[in-house]
Amino acid sequence: MIIVLKPETAAAMQAKLVAQFGSKTELFTHHNRIAIQDIQPADLPADVVAAADDLITDVPAAVQSSRLLHPENTIIKTPHSVIGGDQFVMMAGPCSVESADHVMAMAKVAKQGGATVVRGGAFKPRTSPYSFQGLGEAGLQALRAAADANDLDMITEVMDDEHVPMVAKYTDIFQIGARNMQNFSLLKAVGRTQIPVALKRGMSATIDDVLNAAEYIAAGGNHQIMLLERGIRTFDHKYTRNTFDLGAVPVLQKLTHYPVIVDPSHAVGEWDLVTPMAMAGVASGASGMIVEIHDRPAEALSDGPQALKPKTYLKMAQQAFQLHDLMTSWN
Amino acid sequence: MIIVLKPETAAAMQAKLVAQFGSKTELFTHHNRIAIQDIQPADLPADVVAAADDLITDVPAAVQSSRLLHPENTIIKTPHSVIGGDQFVMMAGPCSVESADHVMAMAKVAKQGGATVVRGGAFKPRTSPYSFQGLGEAGLQALRAAADANDLDMITEVMDDEHVPMVAKYTDIFQIGARNMQNFSLLKAVGRTQIPVALKRGMSATIDDVLNAAEYIAAGGNHQIMLLERGIRTFDHKYTRNTFDLGAVPVLQKLTHYPVIVDPSHAVGEWDLVTPMAMAGVASGASGMIVEIHDRPAEALSDGPQALKPKTYLKMAQQAFQLHDLMTSWN
Amino acid sequence: MIIVLKPETAAAMQAKLVAQFGSKTELFTHHNRIAIQDIQPADLPADVVAAADDLITDVPAAVQSSRLLHPENTIIKTPHSVIGGDQFVMMAGPCSVESADHVMAMAKVAKQGGATVVRGGAFKPRTSPYSFQGLGEAGLQALRAAADANDLDMITEVMDDEHVPMVAKYTDIFQIGARNMQNFSLLKAVGRTQIPVALKRGMSATIDDVLNAAEYIAAGGNHQIMLLERGIRTFDHKYTRNTFDLGAVPVLQKLTHYPVIVDPSHAVGEWDLVTPMAMAGVASGASGMIVEIHDRPAEALSDGPQALKPKTYLKMAQQAFQLHDLMTSWN
Amino acid sequence: MIIVLKPETAAAMQAKLVAQFGSKTELFTHHNRIAIQDIQPADLPADVVAAADDLITDVPAAVQSSRLLHPENTIIKTPHSVIGGDQFVMMAGPCSVESADHVMAMAKVAKQGGATVVRGGAFKPRTSPYSFQGLGEAGLQALRAAADANDLDMITEVMDDEHVPMVAKYTDIFQIGARNMQNFSLLKAVGRTQIPVALKRGMSATIDDVLNAAEYIAAGGNHQIMLLERGIRTFDHKYTRNTFDLGAVPVLQKLTHYPVIVDPSHAVGEWDLVTPMAMAGVASGASGMIVEIHDRPAEALSDGPQALKPKTYLKMAQQAFQLHDLMTSWN
Repeated sequence: MIIVLKPETAAAMQAKLVAQFGSKTELFTHHNRIAIQDIQPADLPADVVAAADDLITDVPAAVQSSRLLHPENTIIKTPHSVIGGDQFVMMAGPCSVESADHVMAMAKVAKQGGATVVRGGAFKPRTSPYSFQGLGEAGLQALRAAADANDLDMITEVMDDEHVPMVAKYTDIFQIGARNMQNFSLLKAVGRTQIPVALKRGMSATIDDVLNAAEYIAAGGNHQIMLLERGIRTFDHKYTRNTFDLGAVPVLQKLTHYPVIVDPSHAVGEWDLVTPMAMAGVASGASGMIVEIHDRPAEALSDGPQALKPKTYLKMAQQAFQLHDLMTSWN
Repeated sequence: MIIVLKPETAAAMQAKLVAQFGSKTELFTHHNRIAIQDIQPADLPADVVAAADDLITDVPAAVQSSRLLHPENTIIKTPHSVIGGDQFVMMAGPCSVESADHVMAMAKVAKQGGATVVRGGAFKPRTSPYSFQGLGEAGLQALRAAADANDLDMITEVMDDEHVPMVAKYTDIFQIGARNMQNFSLLKAVGRTQIPVALKRGMSATIDDVLNAAEYIAAGGNHQIMLLERGIRTFDHKYTRNTFDLGAVPVLQKLTHYPVIVDPSHAVGEWDLVTPMAMAGVASGASGMIVEIHDRPAEALSDGPQALKPKTYLKMAQQAFQLHDLMTSWN
Repeated sequence: MIIVLKPETAAAMQAKLVAQFGSKTELFTHHNRIAIQDIQPADLPADVVAAADDLITDVPAAVQSSRLLHPENTIIKTPHSVIGGDQFVMMAGPCSVESADHVMAMAKVAKQGGATVVRGGAFKPRTSPYSFQGLGEAGLQALRAAADANDLDMITEVMDDEHVPMVAKYTDIFQIGARNMQNFSLLKAVGRTQIPVALKRGMSATIDDVLNAAEYIAAGGNHQIMLLERGIRTFDHKYTRNTFDLGAVPVLQKLTHYPVIVDPSHAVGEWDLVTPMAMAGVASGASGMIVEIHDRPAEALSDGPQALKPKTYLKMAQQAFQLHDLMTSWN
Repeated sequence: MIIVLKPETAAAMQAKLVAQFGSKTELFTHHNRIAIQDIQPADLPADVVAAADDLITDVPAAVQSSRLLHPENTIIKTPHSVIGGDQFVMMAGPCSVESADHVMAMAKVAKQGGATVVRGGAFKPRTSPYSFQGLGEAGLQALRAAADANDLDMITEVMDDEHVPMVAKYTDIFQIGARNMQNFSLLKAVGRTQIPVALKRGMSATIDDVLNAAEYIAAGGNHQIMLLERGIRTFDHKYTRNTFDLGAVPVLQKLTHYPVIVDPSHAVGEWDLVTPMAMAGVASGASGMIVEIHDRPAEALSDGPQALKPKTYLKMAQQAFQLHDLMTSWN
């Protein structure tokens, strides 16, 4: 249950409820609201009921992630980006960090297109154990250097709770991959940091699954969460790698306060489909985009077919910002 | 196999191939191209091979629908619309024709928002036999009158091959519903007319299934076909009725010459998600949109929850045209 | 709502309810039960409430198909088979009727394996318009002759409401194909006959969709319905054509009184997987099986890869009956 | 590529190939076979080609898991079970270890039904962070004691690579849960042990995904792998939690040498559907079953609705063994 208290008495009533129920059940407060698990309206003290503007009983398990407890948007501030606000955030870079020089060159291209975040994988979750598994810590160092040289934020995937402290030394944003969306040990580990987390939707994760996974991070005390729609697995994957579920963007925005970012590269898996899907992603109302770029896709160590060449990326990015500007004019 | 002939000798070579193979297999010609089933390059006369610019051997079953045979876009002209050209076509109206007065009022709203086509169902494919099944021919008459009074084209669903002649008396465009996408008798029946057909993708139809269904219409001699993406059935349908597969738009445009139209109303099934998905549909590059409107959604005889009220529709339509104008400026 | 009346006063109370509500809403009676749409318990006369053993308010739309109205199993009797009773019914034959001789030979094999029904398609719903479409009425005649010569019942697909009278002249059981499961005109047409109907589950039909499709047939007055599980479309179709959803067997048996038949051939699409899936189908509790056989699968005009050769079929059938016997011993 | 060598010269040729290619690429030998990555037949020495019975060039990435390299079945021997041989292995127990007494009582029931392995979760991967997360090491100790007291093997889930050494102290078989099927750090960690691993198929894992995940374990040197089919996520989950994909059983048996076990409890999620699906699982040819039991399902700390009560379990298990006996008589 969530109790919406009148602002003037909220603090007192929250304190009273914490004192009465805090030892027995989970409680979460946010401004003039308080969520209490396993308690019914009939269990509440009469003065709390009297002080309430609303008693919401149909509350999801992922209560801290819900707009019912936290109605206003979460806005995440990193050194060079504001994610979830009025700006559209561009994140770009190679799928994998392949070398210090290469990622430096790609970061420069990313910046040129208006990106404020550079991406690149140093630890790669590959389907086969015999595929390239990433450069590890050397990759993190190279990506950090590329970010710094171009005044960009850095986002990179962490695959394992044991790696969280090491990755934390370098990155501005943790990325949790689709295959790890319900790796609860990893979610708990990043939840114990105060570094923003970009949580990718799992291949067959429902909207509720995504929110519950985010809740694992929030439950640890880290509320700097953004959600990435990257396509889901459906019956049709002959011409696209996944099915880009753009309906998830407004659905998530209705249910949760976390910013929603779209990943058209993984969603379709073919570079010539990325631009139209990137435009569709902007038009769906997302707060930003993460996109893969590579100067020689045929030689990429991973996911070459979906990478945009610099020239295509620059045109796409320009269009994306124009489209976002048009949408801003509608508000 | 498709043989791309040099333009100057194309006609002669096509005639030769028809004479040689026409009695044994299916042949289709288009400009300087000819498709022959079950024939290998080694079976071709030497002068045909010499006269060919290209021999394409990896050809889909739906050959008339393929860009390999028909590289340029199909453009469909109805009295008030050009579908598949540079314009973005708006189709709007109620889910069902509920009464002559109501559909007249809705057609007026549709027109006001820039629609050139009014939609409305007179025969309704309902999941339950006890649900409202449509007004039948009276519904067709009412929709025709509403279209004429507002200088609009009319689109309406035909559910049954026996109804094709009756519906043909009234409509400018046949709609084939998702549940009937592989009702081959119906596809053959509309394929024998020369009335444009809007073919809705089935709930679990792959891209290839859609193209093969279109081919049934083309095989009958009707090439005025447009394809409607209306959402597919996936594992997640708690918050949206279907999953809007916008990746299908550029994929279809790459494979086939038929115009692609998006149906955000059925895709999401909830009115407050329709506008963002309509914008995403425009941004994906579709040639038009079909959208449901109703002045009193709560009283609608079918699909009320997904209908836009007139005011919301008018704003959405204005934004859609602005977005399409911006995209046109990029070409 | 369904009202379960005390047997002794059921007839009188049903008559009373029909008189009171029959002109306003749909009513269905079955033994001592009556279903009334759109009526609440509070609307009922007091003596009806007093005469009721139970008032069931959570009733599905497909009410005539529900065990709530019709608790006992439907048992369908055809000249040589009892479907839905204690026996396990084997239906076998070629995918398509290819010639009179061939189907005669296959019917003999079917019979030898214990089948009481021979299958074969004369009208084939093929994905491509250029694939073999069936022999039409000549195929029906050949299949009828093969059935009669071997004292078997005949099952064959009807694809079109216009064909219902013609197919009715020959067949003992109509088959409605997966692609036509929601071809409501066709469902209504077979619903107006008294010939048993085998309704195949659509590729992405939910359990409720299946029951509502059956209800279209029942609503026409034909209650001789059996349901065929033939695999659904999921994300994985590299090694099997469809995903055999055997969980649907006990689920349907819980919800509806119609017999459930399994179709392992279409479910997997590869002959060497058919025997294990046929065994699994028997073990799941199905009332029968429909399976495709062919003496020269490589030359079959349709679906050769999934056909069992006679020797494999005979062994599989023997095992199926042994397995069913074992299961009968458990009751 | 896989080279099948004549047995008499296999060792010499393998040594030669290792010497020539071992420093450049991955090689795996098994009896008279050798797999070499990224090498074409033309690259082979002439005497190797001469000594080969077969050169297989269409080889999957998961080469060690493939029957092409390892044609005979893997048979896993634990203290009380032989998994993958002629016997059918029953694994039963509560979803979670709830207390030492409870798991002791359930182990006794499991044994009574013919189980040789007792299951129970001490670390529970729950969708919500606020759900019961398991007893941890105390749960492992209780389960070990229950196994020992009943002469049973123990299987329990390990969720995290950091926990592998601790769980290894207690368990006979590691279970990797569906959500962790592509937690590659965890797969590598259990791959470094010599304890058998039961790998659950992920919710939307294709057959190839399963085999590649198994390959991560094999690549570490642990070849004691069994695969668990536990249902996949599809469009229909109203009446069953997942869709039990029994077609995966013979498909996996064709492609890989690892034993395949079925988990009807998670597949359907409703206790009254478990027995028919368990029978179907046996009939599909699985080497064993894992099933959840609980004496008071309504009070279970997790997954109560799918647990069989002892009496139902005992009847189901008896039937399962009878069914397996019948099937054995067919070979």
